[in-house]
Amino acid sequence: LINTEFEEDLPSRIASVAPDARIIMRQDIKAAGELVETVDVVYGKLSEEQFTRAKNLKWLHSASAGMDFALSAAAGAHRAVFTKSHIHAEVMSEHLFAMLLALFRRLDIAHSFQLDSKWDRPAWEQVDVLSGKTLCIVGAGVIGRRCAMLAEAFGMEVIAVRRCAKPTPHAKKVYPPEQLHEALRGGDVVVAILPNTPETKKMIDADAFAAMPNGAVFLNVGRGQTVDTDALLEALKSGRLRAAGLDVTDPEPLPADHPLWAQPNVLITCHYAGMFPRYNIEAGAVFIENLRRFLAGDELLGVMDREAGY
Amino acid sequence: LINTEFEEDLPSRIASVAPDARIIMRQDIKAAGELVETVDVVYGKLSEEQFTRAKNLKWLHSASAGMDFALSAAAGAHRAVFTKSHIHAEVMSEHLFAMLLALFRRLDIAHSFQLDSKWDRPAWEQVDVLSGKTLCIVGAGVIGRRCAMLAEAFGMEVIAVRRCAKPTPHAKKVYPPEQLHEALRGGDVVVAILPNTPETKKMIDADAFAAMPNGAVFLNVGRGQTVDTDALLEALKSGRLRAAGLDVTDPEPLPADHPLWAQPNVLITCHYAGMFPRYNIEAGAVFIENLRRFLAGDELLGVMDREAGY
Repeated sequence: LINTEFEEDLPSRIASVAPDARIIMRQDIKAAGELVETVDVVYGKLSEEQFTRAKNLKWLHSASAGMDFALSAAAGAHRAVFTKSHIHAEVMSEHLFAMLLALFRRLDIAHSFQLDSKWDRPAWEQVDVLSGKTLCIVGAGVIGRRCAMLAEAFGMEVIAVRRCAKPTPHAKKVYPPEQLHEALRGGDVVVAILPNTPETKKMIDADAFAAMPNGAVFLNVGRGQTVDTDALLEALKSGRLRAAGLDVTDPEPLPADHPLWAQPNVLITCHYAGMFPRYNIEAGAVFIENLRRFLAGDELLGVMDREAGY
Repeated sequence: LINTEFEEDLPSRIASVAPDARIIMRQDIKAAGELVETVDVVYGKLSEEQFTRAKNLKWLHSASAGMDFALSAAAGAHRAVFTKSHIHAEVMSEHLFAMLLALFRRLDIAHSFQLDSKWDRPAWEQVDVLSGKTLCIVGAGVIGRRCAMLAEAFGMEVIAVRRCAKPTPHAKKVYPPEQLHEALRGGDVVVAILPNTPETKKMIDADAFAAMPNGAVFLNVGRGQTVDTDALLEALKSGRLRAAGLDVTDPEPLPADHPLWAQPNVLITCHYAGMFPRYNIEAGAVFIENLRRFLAGDELLGVMDREAGY
C-alpha cells in the first residue's frame, strides 16, 4: 500500500525490486477500506482504525521523520516493524538557521520597511550576531547534530540535551534529560528538536523558560506538543525570551485568533522546515532500499525505537 | 580628531596611550572648520573639502570597512596613511547567510501569512536547500573568505573571484577578475562583496547576469555601485535570476518610487549587514592598537592599498 505522496516512477521501481508485489494505491483503499486487511507492507502512515484492521501488516515505512501517528493504542500494540526516513537533517538545519539568523538580523523589520518602500533599518541594539553565543540543543538526534556542526562554524559554543547523554561531535557538553534545566541555563539560544512522545509532552514548560537566561532566543522545529504554549507566550511577554522562531505549534494549525500570531518578536513558519524539492524522490529511495532489505531479510534502515516512541 | 561615533571611554583610552594628545571632537570641528588644519590623526572620515585643508594629517583610521570616501581627488592626492577596521567578517557573513537562507526558505511568504494570521506555507517548488549548490563569491577578501567557510559547512561548493587569484581556503577554484564570466557560469548562488573602486564600477552588468545560470540567486553586501541596477531588474524580470538579496543598492538610499522595492523575490536590507552591538567598542579597540603602533613607529593594521582603492 502506497499511502503517501510519491514520485511518479515509484511503482515501476517497486516492481523492479519486488516483481510479484501487488501495489495498492491510496485512492483504492479510500474506495475499499477492507483492502487494508490484505496489506503486507505500507509506505506512508495508517490511521488508528486502519492499524486495527491491518492484521497482515509486517512492515510500515514512513516518509516523515516524526512517528507520532504510531503512538496510538492500535499502532502501539501492532507487532509490525516501523521504519522512518532520515532525510531531514540538511533541510531542517538550514531552516533552523534561516529562522535564527532572521531573528538576529531582524529581517522582519527589514521586510516591513520594504513593504512600505522605506529606506530604514533596525536600531543598533536590535541586531546581534551568533558568533560567541551559546546554543543549547534539546534533542540532539540526526538533525540536532548537524545543527551543532553549523553552530560551531558560526563561532557558537554548543551544549546538548540527549536521551542517551553520549559525547556528541561539536558539543562541548551533553546533558541527560534529568539535567534539562541545568543545560537551559547556559543557552543564549535554545532549540527544541524533540519528537512527540509521552516523555516529551510539554517538556519545555514554565519552569524550563524560567531556567533560560534573560533575553534568550527560543526555537522549536520538532513538535508543537513538546512546548507549553501558554508558558511560551508568558515568557515572551515578560521579556524572559527576547524572541522565538516556531515551525511547529500547539495547537496546529494555529487558529486565526491565537495571540502567538501577533506577539512581537515571534517568527512562525507553518510546519515546513522539512520541505525541499527532492523530498519525495529521496524518501522513495529510502523506501526502495528498505524494500530490497526487507525481501532479502536484511536489517532495515531507520527502525523506530518503539519503547522510546520515535 | 574623533570624527565618527565612539564608545564613551574612547577619549580616556586615547589619553592613556597618548597622554600629550589634544583631542578634537566632531562638534568642535563643525563649529570651527579651520581646526582640521592642525590635525595629525583622524579617527573617522573626512569630506573632500576637509582633506584639502588637512595639511598636517599623517594618519587616518576609518571605523568602516568601505574606503570609498578616500577615493576623491583631494583624498587620493593626500600623502597620509589610511587604515581601516577589519571587524566585519563575522557579522557580514552572518547577515549574508540570513538573507540567503531567508530567500531559499521563503521567509517572506511565511511573514506575509503571519501578518494575516493564516496557517499556510509556500509550495514545494518555492523552497530549496543550499546543500549541494555552488556559491560563487565575487570579491573573496576577509569577509568573503569567512562566507566560503560557512558555505562549505552548509554543504555548498565554493568558487571565488579575487583580484589576486591566490588559492583560498574552502574554495575549490579561484578566478582572476578577467575570468569573471567564466566563474559566474558556475554559480547557483552569486555573492558580490566588492569595494567601490574605478575597477569595480558596474562590474556586475547585463553581460554578467547573462553569464549566470538560469534561476541563479544573486546577493550584494559590498557596494551598490558595483552592480548595474537596471540590468539587475531586467535579470529579475526575465527570470534569469530567481531571487536577489540586497544590503546595498545604487542609488542609495533607494527612492520610495524605485521599482526594486516591489519586485517579487527581492529582499532588501537597508545597508546594515555590518551592524552589531559591539561595533563601536571593537572599531575603537583597533584604533587604539593602531595609535599605539603609530606612536611607536610600528607597522599599522589594516593599511589601505591606495592603488587598489580599498
